[in-house]
Amino acid sequence: MQNRFSKYIPALTWAREYDRTILSNDLLAALIVTIMLIPQSLAYALLAGLPPEAGLYASIAPIILYAIFGTSRALAVGPVAVVSLMTAAALGNIVEQGTAGYAAAALLLAGLSGLILLGMGLFRLGFIANFLSHPVIAGFITASGIIIAASQLKHILGINAEGHNLLDLVMSLIKHLPETNWVTLLIGALATGFLFWVRKGLKPTLRRAGVSLALADAATKAGPVLVVVLTTLAVWVFGLDNQGVKIVGEVPQSLPPLTLPSFSPELFRQLLLPAFLISIIGFVESISVAQTLAAKKRQRIDPDQELIGLGAANVAASLTGGFPVTGGFSRSVVNFDAGAETPAAGAFTAVGLAIAAVALTPLIFFLPKATLAATIIVAVLSLVDFSILKRSWAYSKADFAAVFITILLTLTLGVEAGVSAGVGLSILLHLYKSSRPHIAEVGLVRGTEHFRNVLRHSVKTHPNVVTLRVDESLYFANARFLEDSIQNRVAGDPDIRHVILQCSAINEIDFSALESLEAINKRLDEMDVKLHLSEVKGPVMDRLEKSHFLDELTGQVFLTQYEAARVAEEGCGTARSG
Amino acid sequence: MQNRFSKYIPALTWAREYDRTILSNDLLAALIVTIMLIPQSLAYALLAGLPPEAGLYASIAPIILYAIFGTSRALAVGPVAVVSLMTAAALGNIVEQGTAGYAAAALLLAGLSGLILLGMGLFRLGFIANFLSHPVIAGFITASGIIIAASQLKHILGINAEGHNLLDLVMSLIKHLPETNWVTLLIGALATGFLFWVRKGLKPTLRRAGVSLALADAATKAGPVLVVVLTTLAVWVFGLDNQGVKIVGEVPQSLPPLTLPSFSPELFRQLLLPAFLISIIGFVESISVAQTLAAKKRQRIDPDQELIGLGAANVAASLTGGFPVTGGFSRSVVNFDAGAETPAAGAFTAVGLAIAAVALTPLIFFLPKATLAATIIVAVLSLVDFSILKRSWAYSKADFAAVFITILLTLTLGVEAGVSAGVGLSILLHLYKSSRPHIAEVGLVRGTEHFRNVLRHSVKTHPNVVTLRVDESLYFANARFLEDSIQNRVAGDPDIRHVILQCSAINEIDFSALESLEAINKRLDEMDVKLHLSEVKGPVMDRLEKSHFLDELTGQVFLTQYEAARVAEEGCGTARSG
Repeated sequence: MQNRFSKYIPALTWAREYDRTILSNDLLAALIVTIMLIPQSLAYALLAGLPPEAGLYASIAPIILYAIFGTSRALAVGPVAVVSLMTAAALGNIVEQGTAGYAAAALLLAGLSGLILLGMGLFRLGFIANFLSHPVIAGFITASGIIIAASQLKHILGINAEGHNLLDLVMSLIKHLPETNWVTLLIGALATGFLFWVRKGLKPTLRRAGVSLALADAATKAGPVLVVVLTTLAVWVFGLDNQGVKIVGEVPQSLPPLTLPSFSPELFRQLLLPAFLISIIGFVESISVAQTLAAKKRQRIDPDQELIGLGAANVAASLTGGFPVTGGFSRSVVNFDAGAETPAAGAFTAVGLAIAAVALTPLIFFLPKATLAATIIVAVLSLVDFSILKRSWAYSKADFAAVFITILLTLTLGVEAGVSAGVGLSILLHLYKSSRPHIAEVGLVRGTEHFRNVLRHSVKTHPNVVTLRVDESLYFANARFLEDSIQNRVAGDPDIRHVILQCSAINEIDFSALESLEAINKRLDEMDVKLHLSEVKGPVMDRLEKSHFLDELTGQVFLTQYEAARVAEEGCGTARSG
Repeated sequence: MQNRFSKYIPALTWAREYDRTILSNDLLAALIVTIMLIPQSLAYALLAGLPPEAGLYASIAPIILYAIFGTSRALAVGPVAVVSLMTAAALGNIVEQGTAGYAAAALLLAGLSGLILLGMGLFRLGFIANFLSHPVIAGFITASGIIIAASQLKHILGINAEGHNLLDLVMSLIKHLPETNWVTLLIGALATGFLFWVRKGLKPTLRRAGVSLALADAATKAGPVLVVVLTTLAVWVFGLDNQGVKIVGEVPQSLPPLTLPSFSPELFRQLLLPAFLISIIGFVESISVAQTLAAKKRQRIDPDQELIGLGAANVAASLTGGFPVTGGFSRSVVNFDAGAETPAAGAFTAVGLAIAAVALTPLIFFLPKATLAATIIVAVLSLVDFSILKRSWAYSKADFAAVFITILLTLTLGVEAGVSAGVGLSILLHLYKSSRPHIAEVGLVRGTEHFRNVLRHSVKTHPNVVTLRVDESLYFANARFLEDSIQNRVAGDPDIRHVILQCSAINEIDFSALESLEAINKRLDEMDVKLHLSEVKGPVMDRLEKSHFLDELTGQVFLTQYEAARVAEEGCGTARSG
C-alpha cells in the first residue's frame, strides 16, 4: 500500500528524508524565485489577456499540487510565455478580452488542459507528445517568441493593436502607429534597453569591478524587480498616468479565489483542440526542462507521473482563478541554481506569492504596462533561435522542411495552425521516408559467407536467383512499395526462378505487410518463381507462425542467407559473377 | 523523344505490336464485357443517386482515356460499387438527389478526383495511398458492402428510405416498411434469389448436366442480363408500372454529352475532402486488381502512371456526363478471362456501350429499379468478408483494432468518418509501436564475439559498462523514449561509467533523434558516464558526420560491439557474470 501511494504521490518519498539542512536550502531558493516570479507572473497574465492578479493566482495553487504529484525535484510550475500566448490565441477568437467571459473561458481552458494531462497520465498516453518532433518544437518556439515580442510592442508604444499572428499584428501596429504615446514609449524603451543590458552586460561589468560571482548573479536576477520599482515610482511621482501611460491599476488584495470554470457545451467544444495543443506543448517543454535538471543529480523523471503532476497543477489553476500553466525553463533553472533540493521549495514559493497577493498588490497600482511588456520582450527574445534552420538543413532536408513550414505557418496563420501543420508534416515525411525503404540487391562476397549490395561490392550472384535485403521494418506504408519492387524486378528478368528476401533488418511485419508477402508469394508462383526468406528475427518469426503464410510459402525459411543462396542455386546450375 | 512519350502514353508501346490475332481476342473480350456492363452501369448510377444513363456515360470516355494512359493491359475502368456509394454519401449531404445540381456536383466530384489523381501521378505522390493499411481497406469494403446492400433494400421493397450509414438506413427502412409495394417486393425477391442461385448453384448444375465449362461460365455471366430482360418484359406485359412498380423510365438516346462541372467555390470546398478520399480508395482498389492481373502474365504496373491513367479517366467522366470511376474488380477479371490482350479491348467495350446508349435505351423503359437493386445486392455481398476480423485478431491486436474501428465507424457514422478514423488509427498505432521500441541490454556470449540479450542468454557483463541495443530506427516518435530509458537505467545504477549504444538495427537517425543523442551524451557526461556507439551503419554514419555530435561525443564510435566492450572494460577492472 505504502509503495502504491508513493508511486502516485512522489511527495511521500522525499518527505521522509526531509531535514533542517534541506529546509534551509529550500527556503532560500523559494525566496529568490518568489522575487523573480512577481513581475514575471504579472507580465504573463498580461500576455494571456488576463488581469494581473491571474498571473499570481496561477503561480500559487499549481506549484503546490505539482510539489505533491510531480517527479522533478526542481521544476517550477506556473505561467510561461508560449502557453500564455497559446491561451490568448485560443480565447481571442471566441470571447472578447477584458470581459468576465474571457476569464471564465481561461479557467475552462486550464481545467480541460488539466483533465487531458491527467487522462494521458492515467492511461499512459504520454507517447502522444512524441508526435512533436524536435524541429517542429524548435520552429514553433522561435516563431512564438517573435509573435509574443510583436504582441507586446503595443504596450511599449501605448497603442491598441490586435492579432494572433505576425501579419495581423504588424498590420494593426502600423495602422495605430500615429496614436503612439511618447511618454509610454520612453518608459518602455528605457525599460527594454535596461533589461537587455542587465542580461548581457551587467554581469561582466560587475565581475570586472571585482564583485563576487554570486552577488553578480543576484544583481542580474534583481534587474526586472528594479525596473518595476523604478518605473512604478516614476509614474507615481510625476503622475504619468495622467499623460496617458497605461498602468496596472487596482488589483484585488486577496488569496487566490475559489473559481468554477464555465461549462457551456459550445465553449467546451471550441476549447477542446486548443486545450489539447496547450497540454502537449506544455508537457514537452516541461519534461525536457525536468530531464535536464534531473540529469545533473542523477535523478529519475517518470513521464507518466509528470503528466499527472502537470494535470493536477492545471486543474488547481482552473479552480483558483488562474489559467494554463506548465513547468517553466527560466524559473526552474533559477530554482535549481538557488539550491532547491525538493519540491517543498515550490510550496514555499507559493507561500511567498500568496503573501505578495495579499500584501503587495497596492504597491503595483502605478506599475506601467510598458514595463511588463519590456520584461516579456527581453525574456522571449532568448527563445528566438533561427540556427535550427541552418542545423536541420545541414543534417536532413525533411527535418528542415518541417521546421520551415512550422515557422512560416505559425507566423502567418497563428500558433494552432503552425504546430498542427508541423506535426502533420513530420508524420507525413516520416511515413514517406519509410514508405520507400532502401532495398539492396545483394550477392556473396568471395571467400566469405557475407552478402553485400551488388552495386557497392564485387560479389558473386546467380542468374536464376535474386536476393533482396530490405533495410526497414515492413508495415502498411511500405507494403505496396515492396510488392511493386519485387514484381518489377522479376517481371523484367525472365531468367529468375528464386527470390530470397533477406530479413536481417526487419524488426516487424504488420498485417498489411503479411498480406503483401502473401500476394507477392502468390504472384511469384504464377510467374513460376519461388519465394524464400532468410535471417528472420525471432519475434518476427513468432508472428509469422500465427498466420497461414508459412504454409503457403512456395520456398523455405533459412536461418542464414548463405544457406538460402546455396540451396536455391543448387537446383539451377553454376554461378555467374557480378 | 519517342521514349519520353512512351513513358507517359503506354498505348504507344503496345500499339506497335498490335496484329490481327490480338484484335480478334480483344474484340471477343469487349463483347462479353459490354453485355455484362450494361446492367451493371445502370445499377451503379442508381446507387450513386444519378439517372441510369450516367452509368453508361461513365463507362465510355473513361475506358478510352485509361486505354491510352494506363499501364495495365486488362484493367476495365468504370463505375464501381464502393466509389458509387462514396459518391452518394459525398453528394447526399450537400445537394438534393434528383436535382440538376446533384448531377452537376457529381461531375465536379469526378473532375476534382481526376485532378487529384493526375496531380499525385505527376508529382509522384502515390505513396499517400500507402496510408491506407490493408486491414483498414478490408474493413472499409466489408462495411461499405453492408451499407450498399441495405441502401438497395428500399428499391426491393418499393419504399422511400434515406441515410448514408447503417443506423440511419435501418431506422428509415423500418419507418417506411408499412408502405411496402408487394408487387415490387415479389419482383425484387425473385430477381435477388435467382441471381444468387446463378452465382452459386447454376454452374455446378450445368456441369453435372454435362455442359462444357466455357458454356457454363457464359451462362453464369449472362444471368444478370436474363433477369433484366425477363423482369422488363413482365412489367411491360402485365402493366406492373401501374401497380406502383418503379421503373427506369425514359432514358435519353444519346452519345455521352459534353458537360462542364459546376464551379461554385463553396461546392468546391465541400467536395475536396470526399474527392480526395474517393481518389485514394479508388486508386488502391484499382492498383491491387491491376497488380494481380499483371502478375499472371509477368507484366509491369507503374503506380505513378496508373494515377495518371485513372486521373485522365475521371476527368473524362466529368466532361461527359459521368461520375467518379476507377478500375473495377469483377469487370477487369471478366475482361482478362475473356482473353483481352491490350487496352484496345477497353476501347472496343466503349464502342459497344456507346451503341447501347444510342440504340438500346428505349428497351429499358420498363426495367424495374428492383431488378437493378437485386444486381447490386448480389454483387456487393461478395465484398462482405468478416474473416478479416478473425485473421487480424490472430496476428496482431493493433491491426485488429484498426479493422474493428473502421467497420464500426463506417457502419454507424458513414464512409468518410470510417475510412478517416481507420487511417488515423493505423498511423497512431504504428507511431505508438515504434515509439516504444524493443531495447535489449546485451552481454557477451562466452567463447564468441556475439552480444545477446542479458534476459534470454547466459552472457558476460561488466559492472561499470552497460550496452543497449535498440531494435528500431531512431526518429522523433521514439527519441524521448530513448532518453527516458537510458537516463533511468543509468540513474538507477551508480556503478555505471560507460554506456554503449549498439546501432546494428538502426536504419536511420533523424534530427530529433540526433538532438536526443546530444542531450543523452550531455546528461551522461554530467553523471560522469561516457557514451559510445558501436556497429553504426554506413548511411547513418554519413549523416552523423554532417552534425557536431561526433565532436561532442564523450566516448568513441567502434566498428564492432566486441571492440567497444573491450575498450570500455579495459579501464574499469574485471568482468562479472550475469
